[in-house]
Amino acid sequence: MRIIVIICLLAMSGLAFGQDRYVLVIHGGAGTILRTQLTPEKEKAYKEALKASLMAGYEIIKKGGSSLDAVEAAVRSMEDCPLFNAGKGAVFTAEGKNELDAAIMNGRTLEAGAVAGVTVIRNPVTAARAVMEKSKHVMLTGKGAEAFAREAGLEIVDPSYFHTDDRWNGLQRARKLDSTRQQLDHADTAVTSAKLGAEHLDYKFGTVGAVALDRQGNLAAATSTGGMTNKKYGRVGDAPVIGAGTYADNATCAVSCTGWGEYFIRLTVAKTVCDLMEYKGMSVKDAANELIMKKVPVLGGDGGLIALDRKGNIAMPFNTAGMYRAAIKENGEWEVMIFKP
Amino acid sequence: MRIIVIICLLAMSGLAFGQDRYVLVIHGGAGTILRTQLTPEKEKAYKEALKASLMAGYEIIKKGGSSLDAVEAAVRSMEDCPLFNAGKGAVFTAEGKNELDAAIMNGRTLEAGAVAGVTVIRNPVTAARAVMEKSKHVMLTGKGAEAFAREAGLEIVDPSYFHTDDRWNGLQRARKLDSTRQQLDHADTAVTSAKLGAEHLDYKFGTVGAVALDRQGNLAAATSTGGMTNKKYGRVGDAPVIGAGTYADNATCAVSCTGWGEYFIRLTVAKTVCDLMEYKGMSVKDAANELIMKKVPVLGGDGGLIALDRKGNIAMPFNTAGMYRAAIKENGEWEVMIFKP
Repeated sequence: MRIIVIICLLAMSGLAFGQDRYVLVIHGGAGTILRTQLTPEKEKAYKEALKASLMAGYEIIKKGGSSLDAVEAAVRSMEDCPLFNAGKGAVFTAEGKNELDAAIMNGRTLEAGAVAGVTVIRNPVTAARAVMEKSKHVMLTGKGAEAFAREAGLEIVDPSYFHTDDRWNGLQRARKLDSTRQQLDHADTAVTSAKLGAEHLDYKFGTVGAVALDRQGNLAAATSTGGMTNKKYGRVGDAPVIGAGTYADNATCAVSCTGWGEYFIRLTVAKTVCDLMEYKGMSVKDAANELIMKKVPVLGGDGGLIALDRKGNIAMPFNTAGMYRAAIKENGEWEVMIFKP
Repeated sequence: MRIIVIICLLAMSGLAFGQDRYVLVIHGGAGTILRTQLTPEKEKAYKEALKASLMAGYEIIKKGGSSLDAVEAAVRSMEDCPLFNAGKGAVFTAEGKNELDAAIMNGRTLEAGAVAGVTVIRNPVTAARAVMEKSKHVMLTGKGAEAFAREAGLEIVDPSYFHTDDRWNGLQRARKLDSTRQQLDHADTAVTSAKLGAEHLDYKFGTVGAVALDRQGNLAAATSTGGMTNKKYGRVGDAPVIGAGTYADNATCAVSCTGWGEYFIRLTVAKTVCDLMEYKGMSVKDAANELIMKKVPVLGGDGGLIALDRKGNIAMPFNTAGMYRAAIKENGEWEVMIFKP
């Protein structure tokens, strides 16, 4: 009898605490990241930055904090690091500005928030969270989103805060490539891309993101990006589009994407991963592969994603040469990877 | 033998021409449209405007034109009509401006285009189409989208073109309601909405859209809106979010939504209708009902959608008092409806 009571109490505490599994997965962008192009110093710097982001989120879920807090902390860490195309270190638009997009989603409530085209908010992911929690809206854009962030008391910075020489030089290279591209544009895209080589594609990429499962069994996802180098016309990619670059639903999984945003929007990639699980009974791995290894490349796009289901199963597929990524589980085991396994 | 050859030839000609079915469905927004509130004159005006939009698109597919041309023409017709919340007659933002959003999608190629927060483009749906066909992007926003539209040679108007006294008065009523709402906002949303009554919810609504199936068997969808009255902070609703308010895929169906945009974004409504068909084998009617009669109201949202599969099956569910809607089939039979059947 006493044993049964103890078992019941243990089971109940298990229910109250949710579960023993808690996991955090992050990415720092996919693209033509070749072993031959990355110096040992740069590789080390990226790995350290990814680990710092991982630990920022892990400390939170380890202590019983929410997956939402964890993904926000992990993404903020990468937004603050000039190595990644988000926050400080974001790429430049054709006008020489840094226009940032971010989104966050709560898998328990299906609440979501996003900002697009913001230029003075230090941490766009925190602005996305404020939209979710302090407004009745999901998506705010441009000057309006910035006015909201000010009213919400978020940290506002001078646009020059986001400047890095690396990205500025990237813009100059992209401008040169784009003028070549315009001459080639009578040919179709595939031909043009082939003629311009890897760099042409690569400046479309670069995004950071995180997905987490907390001890209460709740999933969350967040994504943040500077978009594509030399972007024009107020272009918005998939990152701030709920369902395309970011989605989280406790019933299925949490997803954050990185890649050629236009293709991810056209396929509503993040939500489709969830739907393949919910309506077709696929595992998170199979569902993620279906999009990244089949649907996206069939259309002509590329990139990758991270996904995490509520049992703690992880998927990190990408169809590019590399994807900055890392994961940590409840036992403290972590891994940081850049190239193909 | 001769009979078999004839059958084969007939089948081949059928394939070449696609099919005999061609259908166009449109909506002019869902909301608290009560028979008691609509004067006979106003009801007649709405029905005539819906019929004009229907015929603008039908003439195109009847002659063998594309579903893309048909949905664009149908939506343009409603954008030009001051009765609908899109183009001329759009609602006003908190700042007293008209900020317009639109999207279009080609079900054959999964190409898509969208503009958000534009203020000087006469027909936002045509701008969305130009984004799809003349840029490498899917979503352009604000001043950037307007610069693109200018370069693409689209018709630019003075912002005053969109002004109507009806909508201006609506903004004044909304401002009054919003100041009441702010006093009530310590209570939860449901309580607040209940206290404010139908009009509070209603100014969140109003969108126009079209879905079409052409004689080549191709589907297309388009949506256009002025968003919600008194909107702030560069708020973007579901209409220009591919997957949320607009989606089209020949493999499943074409969808255009209208309703409380935030909920439609959180549920990625349009793409989920498609996924329920593709991955769960549902009919277009069941899939559309699953979203509008279950998932959206469970979260607390409301609205409706129109959907059309490639066999010409139509769904037009809504969970509000009314939805302006109309449909026409290849035999020329048409119907225009406002209230519940």
